[in-house]
Amino acid sequence: MEKIGLIAGGGRLPVIFAREARKRGAYIIGFAIKEVASQDLDTACDKVHWLNTGQIKKFLFLLMVERIKRIVMLGKVDKSIVYGSVEEGQDYLNLLKNARDKSDYTILDRITSELGKRGVEVKSGMEYLSDLLLPKGVLTKRHPSQEETEDISFGFSVAKELARLDIGQTIVVKDKAVVSVEAMEGTNRTIERAAELCAGGFVVIKVSRPHQDMRWDVPVVGPETIKVIAENKGKVLAIEEKRMFLVEKETCVSLADSNDISIVVG
Amino acid sequence: MEKIGLIAGGGRLPVIFAREARKRGAYIIGFAIKEVASQDLDTACDKVHWLNTGQIKKFLFLLMVERIKRIVMLGKVDKSIVYGSVEEGQDYLNLLKNARDKSDYTILDRITSELGKRGVEVKSGMEYLSDLLLPKGVLTKRHPSQEETEDISFGFSVAKELARLDIGQTIVVKDKAVVSVEAMEGTNRTIERAAELCAGGFVVIKVSRPHQDMRWDVPVVGPETIKVIAENKGKVLAIEEKRMFLVEKETCVSLADSNDISIVVG
Repeated sequence: MEKIGLIAGGGRLPVIFAREARKRGAYIIGFAIKEVASQDLDTACDKVHWLNTGQIKKFLFLLMVERIKRIVMLGKVDKSIVYGSVEEGQDYLNLLKNARDKSDYTILDRITSELGKRGVEVKSGMEYLSDLLLPKGVLTKRHPSQEETEDISFGFSVAKELARLDIGQTIVVKDKAVVSVEAMEGTNRTIERAAELCAGGFVVIKVSRPHQDMRWDVPVVGPETIKVIAENKGKVLAIEEKRMFLVEKETCVSLADSNDISIVVG
Repeated sequence: MEKIGLIAGGGRLPVIFAREARKRGAYIIGFAIKEVASQDLDTACDKVHWLNTGQIKKFLFLLMVERIKRIVMLGKVDKSIVYGSVEEGQDYLNLLKNARDKSDYTILDRITSELGKRGVEVKSGMEYLSDLLLPKGVLTKRHPSQEETEDISFGFSVAKELARLDIGQTIVVKDKAVVSVEAMEGTNRTIERAAELCAGGFVVIKVSRPHQDMRWDVPVVGPETIKVIAENKGKVLAIEEKRMFLVEKETCVSLADSNDISIVVG
């Protein structure tokens, strides 16, 4: 039986991974981040260790005790948490020492490299999650209007440029103008700001990074994103095909349908 | 005597232009946008017409009556105001009909072209405002730290890319990570958001567009920007040399000095 460690941040993705991987015969040991990861991990994994982000020593000790050789990192971890833990004076890890910058990729690259030094390989969760990647198409009853279709096409090209710069992966577009751009505040606040600036009817675009590392970094959208769009009177969510996860697809589509929102995979 | 029309949006720039141009012998007729333009235009110009953005017919009539052949457009006009006026059904202007998109440049290009058809040339205000363009250097008592200098350099390169995409011209950086990016919300809200996300100590970068049209579009910073940075505990304002205006320079520097902020022209 394959034993896989799972560093679990927020959201549904770690839970979905654990369930799918166990269905297919893997033994999953969760390392769940307290106050961020879902309590459902307790039942979704074979075993779970709950850790604060500051408990890096304990984490490394548990990795050894559990004889973990393969690990998957899934779920959102707010960058401020990583900073918090690094700033606690844990110089034994030296995560960001001499780092080129403090972008997500730099941080994750350092973590991967630190784990590698300890004989732990960071793997992609993809082989168990490929059902969540979608081909091109419209998932909802509502299809985008001609204007919205043009906004989607305009928005994808702008969003890909921003993703390439490693700033953020979400933008909101209306009438071929960029209303708001995500940086550190996250998708939800970017959508809420757009609503304040243009009073609804907008298109939300979310894309992957051009050189995305499938081990760490597959963007996720789920019911929460649809809810925020609905509450803020947006009309379309456009996501990129095959390089992003749509979690709880049925819930997403049903939420979108009942709020007259289009979900477009483009 | 040279007669120049001045379409005046918000901020100090139209007032400064009118004063400078009159000092040098021009006769200035202001077309001031109500609730946006400064009341000081009444004394700064030789004559002022106050207009709502919806009063496009009246504006075109006045241009003819006043025999305006040269016009300068200065000062900030919120895009929502332009939308508002266009959406009032004034199809005789057809400002945005068949437009590629609704970016600032597209809108301004259309306005310039519409004025051209009526024999009015849109001129740059630059020849009267060149004193407001600055060479490289540090203007304040406080010089940026080594870390801040690196953030300035990192930030300029990212901000230039965003400006090239015609999204926004301001970003906030801390520790070589982009904290917030401006789109439609404007500079002040981008700075305020950064403060919520990283609790101060950040670097604000403002740049021009790579293919900036000096007739319409010279970015402006002034005392208000310094005040917002101070209130939100930012440490540095970095602006681009020779392609942006620093208005009320003495006030800006004195405000920055008393709040321990660096102003860097880079």
